[in-house]
Amino acid sequence: MGDEKEVLSSDRVENEPSTTLTSELGIFHKSWLSIVSLWFGLMSKVCKFVRNAWDIGVNDPRKPMHGVKVGAALSVVSLLYYMRPLYYSVGGNAMWAVLTVVVVFENNVGATISKSFNRMMATFLAGALAVGVHWIGCHSGKPFEPIIIRASLFLLAVTATFSRFIPNIKARFDYGASIFILTFTVVSVAGYRIDNLFAFAQQRLLTVAIGASMCILVSMIISPIWAGQDLHFHVTCNLEKLADSLDGCVVEYFKEDNERNHGESFKRLQGYKCTLNSKGMEDSLCNFARWEPAHGCFSFRHPWKQYLKVGSSMRSCASCIEALVGSCINSKIKAHESTKEPLGNLCKRLSSHSSAVLKELATIIKSMRRSPRLLLLTEEMRIAAQELQHVLKSQPRQPIPSLSPQKLDFTSTLKNLHLIQVLPLLTVTSLLIEIATRVERVIDEVDELSRLANFKPANDEKPHPDLGEQNIMRTLQLV
Amino acid sequence: MGDEKEVLSSDRVENEPSTTLTSELGIFHKSWLSIVSLWFGLMSKVCKFVRNAWDIGVNDPRKPMHGVKVGAALSVVSLLYYMRPLYYSVGGNAMWAVLTVVVVFENNVGATISKSFNRMMATFLAGALAVGVHWIGCHSGKPFEPIIIRASLFLLAVTATFSRFIPNIKARFDYGASIFILTFTVVSVAGYRIDNLFAFAQQRLLTVAIGASMCILVSMIISPIWAGQDLHFHVTCNLEKLADSLDGCVVEYFKEDNERNHGESFKRLQGYKCTLNSKGMEDSLCNFARWEPAHGCFSFRHPWKQYLKVGSSMRSCASCIEALVGSCINSKIKAHESTKEPLGNLCKRLSSHSSAVLKELATIIKSMRRSPRLLLLTEEMRIAAQELQHVLKSQPRQPIPSLSPQKLDFTSTLKNLHLIQVLPLLTVTSLLIEIATRVERVIDEVDELSRLANFKPANDEKPHPDLGEQNIMRTLQLV
Repeated sequence: MGDEKEVLSSDRVENEPSTTLTSELGIFHKSWLSIVSLWFGLMSKVCKFVRNAWDIGVNDPRKPMHGVKVGAALSVVSLLYYMRPLYYSVGGNAMWAVLTVVVVFENNVGATISKSFNRMMATFLAGALAVGVHWIGCHSGKPFEPIIIRASLFLLAVTATFSRFIPNIKARFDYGASIFILTFTVVSVAGYRIDNLFAFAQQRLLTVAIGASMCILVSMIISPIWAGQDLHFHVTCNLEKLADSLDGCVVEYFKEDNERNHGESFKRLQGYKCTLNSKGMEDSLCNFARWEPAHGCFSFRHPWKQYLKVGSSMRSCASCIEALVGSCINSKIKAHESTKEPLGNLCKRLSSHSSAVLKELATIIKSMRRSPRLLLLTEEMRIAAQELQHVLKSQPRQPIPSLSPQKLDFTSTLKNLHLIQVLPLLTVTSLLIEIATRVERVIDEVDELSRLANFKPANDEKPHPDLGEQNIMRTLQLV
Repeated sequence: MGDEKEVLSSDRVENEPSTTLTSELGIFHKSWLSIVSLWFGLMSKVCKFVRNAWDIGVNDPRKPMHGVKVGAALSVVSLLYYMRPLYYSVGGNAMWAVLTVVVVFENNVGATISKSFNRMMATFLAGALAVGVHWIGCHSGKPFEPIIIRASLFLLAVTATFSRFIPNIKARFDYGASIFILTFTVVSVAGYRIDNLFAFAQQRLLTVAIGASMCILVSMIISPIWAGQDLHFHVTCNLEKLADSLDGCVVEYFKEDNERNHGESFKRLQGYKCTLNSKGMEDSLCNFARWEPAHGCFSFRHPWKQYLKVGSSMRSCASCIEALVGSCINSKIKAHESTKEPLGNLCKRLSSHSSAVLKELATIIKSMRRSPRLLLLTEEMRIAAQELQHVLKSQPRQPIPSLSPQKLDFTSTLKNLHLIQVLPLLTVTSLLIEIATRVERVIDEVDELSRLANFKPANDEKPHPDLGEQNIMRTLQLV
């Protein structure tokens, strides 16, 4: 490269007359190159974006389908505008129906119903109030009319805006409060220029109701996406990921260094993180699920709130797994290899039993059927935990316990090591015992769920209705 | 009570003729009582709601102030409707300005700017596109016109709705995509009945721009709430809570059983939970902060994203504290009291040093000034961790290490106990060492923040600008 430069500069000195031409060509060449590279950079970005969008659509066909549904609802509602008799029947206010569809149509049925209901109720209340205030204004004489109308607008806007900060209202009626201010303002302000305000408010309510019903109908009839069903599978899927993480990470810890791999199984180990970060999603799905009518195996009063409790107990497990991964598996202080073998099998047994229990819980929720195996698996997990505690209890006071060669081995190993070399192993043990305790809490919460939701008894062998679950499970795993 | 009943029933038998009257009086009495109790029940609920709302307002006066700001902006914008020349200057479309204020005005400046920008850009793009499509439709002859317009409406609705699922678009332009469909539909549908579509689209853009600018102005001028400032203090406050939790929980663990209290200090211990559940809030605040202009000590390109990294490293600390609380402090397996004393002081020292580092980091972020004490505190924390590791290393191979009486004590105690009795203590130790490692990660992230945001050097003694921080800190602590 340095040589090349020298050659070029010596060229320039020798061919002095053609310098200008060369430099002009150089500038042209450079700017051409930069345009081409800019073009290709842009194209590659666009391609990446399109590929990304395509992947999203292919992984979850419900998403493009949602787009089609919105398009269909809009096309139908815009007929109100295109067809003369329909247009005049709503007094030329067809636009509100179109707006309602755009604003209210959400991804899942629960959210759509919640927004539609909020919009209709808020429109009704605010419209009635605005007409009432207008009537009072009209009957209180000229000087007071504008004062009453403007003061009521200001006061109601302040109150309704502030009410959105109150947690109970925020959770269920946030959108309603915003539409309340909107409708009150529209009707109250329009009262200044419209003679028949009552008819105006009535038409607004009618068009909003038409738009909202259209949304609810389309979202429930054309391949519906139920928030409740999503929540159900979200929790199931997280339970399975948690089980995989727990088992995988203990197995990984007790592997020899050269056996460890960091590819596919590493990704599987990180599954617990989905649970750690799932609170917001679960809260909002539960909030929407409560608006949904009965569908599939879920009745109208399905105990959706119990899923939040299950989720919370799972998060407490997950944060223990996080500590396990951090303080032992990724830690700088590695356990001495020789200490792993004796306690290792017991730890692996406890973790695999805990993980089996979590998987069984996932199956119970998925099939909505109690399991005869759960008691057995729980008992096995308890026994494994007790055995581990028993081994720890018998150390180091009894130098050579006569129970099993394993323990004998461990005691003698322990005696020849620094405490720091066994500390990671002891921490793993202690955390695994704690995880088993927290799994019991998950069992309790799932048990409560099966009681509240009347899960079928274990011996009832009738297959449960198909929920299109494989498709959804695949989707959730990819999320 | 039983006696009274008997007396009443014997009374009834004796006074048989007046039974009807008594029972009528009884029914009247009962229904009166139930109405009164219903009324009082309702009143107590209303009182509770009002008191709750009042508390929210008193604890954070910015919330009612936000309501007043929305009311003021609405009142000003509604003048467009009330004043004849203004009304006709926007072609009777003043309602769009009012709607814009209601929909766009958000709690903090960043969110308001983000929504306003989204609304204006989307209105411009969609309006232009709709006018273009309409022009093409008009020039392609009668039979094609409705087909082109309706097909374009359907296709754009599908595309824009689907685009809201793409994470990049969802994060910053979700509202814009929704307004894009809305405006395109409104303009495209209105084209069917309005002659001068271009003027209609232009007026819509103008009214939306008027409403949006009004919101931005009011939200920035009247006691502005900056998302960036909130994020800044949110992270600071969480750091302090984390420090309090860590220190408090170790002190609590090493207390005698009868010394423990479960009142105020128990609440303080739970502070780490705020950090665990803060991801969603931090993400959204950061997203809004990036839209905000320079304010207070924050420049326009303040590294807001770095706060997310600090937050994430704090969460990793917090989940370790969660495991500490669960596996040791709330655990059923209690450490033997006699084991606590010897290692206890070292553990308490490490935790108090780690906690001091976290508090110093909070001070650094709060004052936006590097600290000369941080290095010292970090070094002390490292030394405490190393000392703890050293003590563990010297166990149990050297029966009587000659370093300090503490260690001697610990070794002899350890030898007389079951392993299960020292296990909780060892787990606490191991988790504390891990927490110290994770605190180092927080130090790194805060260091990177101070580099990116050009924090003032430590020796610069000029006091930093007041940010109204005491008020905000009090608010955040109460949230």
